[in-house]
Amino acid sequence: MSGNPVGMIMAGGRGTRFWPLSTASMPKQFLELLPGGTMLQLTGERLAGICGRERVMVVTGRDYGALAAEQLPWLDGGNLLLEPEGRNTAPCIGWAAAALARRGMGDRVMIVVPSDHSIHPDSGFRRTVLKAVEAAEKGYLVAMGVPPVFPATGYGYIRTGAELSEGVFRVDSFREKPDGATAARYLAAGGYLWNAGMFVWKVSEILAALRKHLPELYRALGRLESETRPEAALFGSLPAVSIDVGVMEKADNVAVVPADFSWSDIGDWPGARAAGVRRGERVLVDSEDVLVYDSTGRLTVVMGLSGVSVVSTDRAILVMADGCAQKLRDVAEEAQRMVTGAPMGSQE
Amino acid sequence: MSGNPVGMIMAGGRGTRFWPLSTASMPKQFLELLPGGTMLQLTGERLAGICGRERVMVVTGRDYGALAAEQLPWLDGGNLLLEPEGRNTAPCIGWAAAALARRGMGDRVMIVVPSDHSIHPDSGFRRTVLKAVEAAEKGYLVAMGVPPVFPATGYGYIRTGAELSEGVFRVDSFREKPDGATAARYLAAGGYLWNAGMFVWKVSEILAALRKHLPELYRALGRLESETRPEAALFGSLPAVSIDVGVMEKADNVAVVPADFSWSDIGDWPGARAAGVRRGERVLVDSEDVLVYDSTGRLTVVMGLSGVSVVSTDRAILVMADGCAQKLRDVAEEAQRMVTGAPMGSQE
Repeated sequence: MSGNPVGMIMAGGRGTRFWPLSTASMPKQFLELLPGGTMLQLTGERLAGICGRERVMVVTGRDYGALAAEQLPWLDGGNLLLEPEGRNTAPCIGWAAAALARRGMGDRVMIVVPSDHSIHPDSGFRRTVLKAVEAAEKGYLVAMGVPPVFPATGYGYIRTGAELSEGVFRVDSFREKPDGATAARYLAAGGYLWNAGMFVWKVSEILAALRKHLPELYRALGRLESETRPEAALFGSLPAVSIDVGVMEKADNVAVVPADFSWSDIGDWPGARAAGVRRGERVLVDSEDVLVYDSTGRLTVVMGLSGVSVVSTDRAILVMADGCAQKLRDVAEEAQRMVTGAPMGSQE
Repeated sequence: MSGNPVGMIMAGGRGTRFWPLSTASMPKQFLELLPGGTMLQLTGERLAGICGRERVMVVTGRDYGALAAEQLPWLDGGNLLLEPEGRNTAPCIGWAAAALARRGMGDRVMIVVPSDHSIHPDSGFRRTVLKAVEAAEKGYLVAMGVPPVFPATGYGYIRTGAELSEGVFRVDSFREKPDGATAARYLAAGGYLWNAGMFVWKVSEILAALRKHLPELYRALGRLESETRPEAALFGSLPAVSIDVGVMEKADNVAVVPADFSWSDIGDWPGARAAGVRRGERVLVDSEDVLVYDSTGRLTVVMGLSGVSVVSTDRAILVMADGCAQKLRDVAEEAQRMVTGAPMGSQE
């Protein structure tokens, strides 16, 4: 092995799907939804357990630098990369890879994970990552795919091909988010995994792939002078493309390792309920499938309602039927304006 | 007319149907559910407009004396009668009538109203009361009945008999709370009024009726030495019977005046919604028939739910489907224990 792997956490989300708990100034990755710490803290510790804290890198928005540093006080200042704006995952990953190459870590394996997913147990994550690291050292661009547990339409799928070694598969193809019938077919057929946006590869291999498949991006990365705080105009000119579409779907040295852990992206409040998120005392009467989250620890009583989320802070209360979770993003904009007098995009 | 009428407000309720807003130490009559004041304040001012403030009397529980005095600072101390315990309406009314008789007001007309009903407009209330006062001065025990607007099963009904004078009717009979089919029949037939627990009579007439129909109670009233703070053991021995059952259903000098105002007893949260109760900013998305009441003025967002009440204070949050309103009484006991560590019946 060419030195310990490096962990890269993508923490750029500005999610409004967790209003009123999340706001533009406090997105989901910085919230303590699960016991033990914020999503970023849990992710940071999980990666540190594999890479060592000094080899954990965080990429987030410029507005969130202070928050990330506060939540991960052990993070090396040089490993906190602040994007002037979100430009999707390919620029973000390419920039981090370029920074590692400049630091002489081009041979290292890089583990790329989102900051706001629920994963357990850590031991299963570690097993899966180490298997992916082995494949990455052979030159593969490795996705960690999640065995689907329901016919989700919210994720892309990875169709597995031939087994390369135990638990490591060639990728037959990446599939866009399917409709319900197609998702059900995938689930019935087997051999499909959710694309969870978690990747493992050598720094040199992902840079080579970017040079080949996204040459414009690759050239622009060479012009970014600061490793941690790039110039806004230059960064803003990078092509905003995902690493999935820009690289993984085109490259031929792609592999996938099925995750040996349970996973949730906690994409909305009903998803948070499924992942066990809750806070505050609660009493449920004639009610099922209820999420209760009160940030101030008050008692919540729910009577005669099922499939709802009740989320409250010291500023606002949300009561939402599961079917409306997709609409919350729009509603949150208006609601947040009413609470603060300012739109969600601006800083409080 | 033998002097101005006297107004008597019955404010003894210990309701738990408005949890978390109401508690044992702050029952409904002391809450500001409607604009302009608490239920007791609105009732007090409404009566004062007819009787004059110095002739308004309040009967409430011993625990609520300070609260009543605080909310009605103009109330004469001698007109605040404190019950050691609730013994239903006949002892309460009889005691107040006896106190008035001792003060030389046996000839006065007495207007008896609950403290926690929504009534508007005040002008209609005044018109109805003055008509009832006229009948009372002729010796009738007068109920003010509310023209039913839906087939309610939660109220008793009064069947009207012959018209005695314009807008004043003999009572054919009092009817217990009906089932749904019977209530629908009453509504279709016409000639039925809701018994809203509002009465007008001469002090001497109600005392005569008590002597005749509830002689044991009448005799015991004579032994109550304090007009405002009776001995607990003696008061607790009074027969706990309602004035409706104990007197009105038996007496033959009973009349009824249909109310010329709109009325609601605001019996539970859905009833409060119907009466226009609300507080705090709100945003409703794909939602109808929603009551929002946040005592601290926060924003409440409700999405995809209809027929629900969302009530919040700085200590607890209630989200309740309309169908569960009857159950709240029991749930509130447990919930309040969780919030305060003490049962609702005890003082905070």
